[in-house]
Amino acid sequence: MARFKLTIEYEGGAFSGWQRQAEGASVQGALEEAVFKLAGERTEVVGAGRTDSGVHAYGQVAHVDVQKPLSADRLRDALNAHLRPAPVAVLKAEAVAADFHARFDAIRRVYLYRIVNRRADLTLDKGRAWRLAAPLDAEAMHAAARGLLGKHDFTTFRDSQCQAKSPVKTLDRCDVARRGEEIEVICEARSFLHRQVRSMVGSLAEVGLGHWRVRDIADALEARDRGRCGPVAPGEGLYLLRVDYRADD
Amino acid sequence: MARFKLTIEYEGGAFSGWQRQAEGASVQGALEEAVFKLAGERTEVVGAGRTDSGVHAYGQVAHVDVQKPLSADRLRDALNAHLRPAPVAVLKAEAVAADFHARFDAIRRVYLYRIVNRRADLTLDKGRAWRLAAPLDAEAMHAAARGLLGKHDFTTFRDSQCQAKSPVKTLDRCDVARRGEEIEVICEARSFLHRQVRSMVGSLAEVGLGHWRVRDIADALEARDRGRCGPVAPGEGLYLLRVDYRADD
Repeated sequence: MARFKLTIEYEGGAFSGWQRQAEGASVQGALEEAVFKLAGERTEVVGAGRTDSGVHAYGQVAHVDVQKPLSADRLRDALNAHLRPAPVAVLKAEAVAADFHARFDAIRRVYLYRIVNRRADLTLDKGRAWRLAAPLDAEAMHAAARGLLGKHDFTTFRDSQCQAKSPVKTLDRCDVARRGEEIEVICEARSFLHRQVRSMVGSLAEVGLGHWRVRDIADALEARDRGRCGPVAPGEGLYLLRVDYRADD
Repeated sequence: MARFKLTIEYEGGAFSGWQRQAEGASVQGALEEAVFKLAGERTEVVGAGRTDSGVHAYGQVAHVDVQKPLSADRLRDALNAHLRPAPVAVLKAEAVAADFHARFDAIRRVYLYRIVNRRADLTLDKGRAWRLAAPLDAEAMHAAARGLLGKHDFTTFRDSQCQAKSPVKTLDRCDVARRGEEIEVICEARSFLHRQVRSMVGSLAEVGLGHWRVRDIADALEARDRGRCGPVAPGEGLYLLRVDYRADD
């Protein structure tokens, strides 16, 4: 038996999320079905992050154990062949140590949130970004995001269904930058609470729209009160860009 | 009556092309239907370029005459409301002189062609780029493209259905650059022959794959023989980025 690390890209709109479930197509389920078709083995594909419905990935990471003898490249190509035509692709497969764990060994997760700030509906970016028609002040959003950096109790920005034992997380990066009509938010942390990025982005958008002052973000954080969170930004603007591990993994 | 210049974005995969036709949804037809719904007027929306089936636009330009008194902003918003849910959006509407012509007055058209060079199928970019699995040498492609610049008889790179009176065009820019797994080709000219960009990109890809030598591109051009063109690159990788006019238009 060999353990493989998979780097995975998907269009989240086609799935009800990463996690396998009784109803609806999941990314995990599609991958496990592909492993079964290629190796005849029922096995679990363990992802680094359980992305929600609609959330995309350029670099989700998972691990899987396969008994059938296969090279990493052959596994990648065979999985991709069996995944067609679902919009999920294995970009890379690597043989790893038997104790490598995609979820527990991750030292950094990087998310991108895309806002398109314009009046016209989205066409090429439909389902790939959050459109907001009213002008957003990206500099104010970036300034407000300074108040979220560091180690905090993120209860305000945590979904009520979140199963994490502790609401304390360390946010290492939360940069907001405008590029033409697009506003990009990049968030980095060792790990995030359920819907934390979307909760933070939705609240930062309130600052951008002028509904909240810059310091309202830090005040909301300090309140540790889910009722102080702004509207949660939709899943379709969120991308899991990358998951990092120690170099020796 | 007032003439308006429209800047238009669309996802080409949803249409059989720009041009109105008896069968199949066209971008022009969708816009003309939206004008009819909003103003009760049957009128022609004249585009700067007749993009083919599958070809996208970030900045197609068209002109249209409307009798109903409307501000440019109101026209833009009303057209977008009537265009929903088709993936076409009017980014900008501007009142222009009665003799402005979107097609004849254009002084420059800028196209982008996107190639994704990787083994895995496309997910987020499905229908938005041409995937090529074998490694491409983008520098060789760029070097070969030097041989296409300037004023030439482009018969080799012209579709047999092309209706232009002359095959002579002046290509002002044809840059090929790699960004990670993506290769972008940018082409600029006052005007192009039918399928000229896709014909040139398909031939440049032959150079990138090592099937053709760098100088084979200039030789194929000089031959003025459609039979010397490489495989035509698919429409789904092509984007009409921008159409330029004189500043006083």
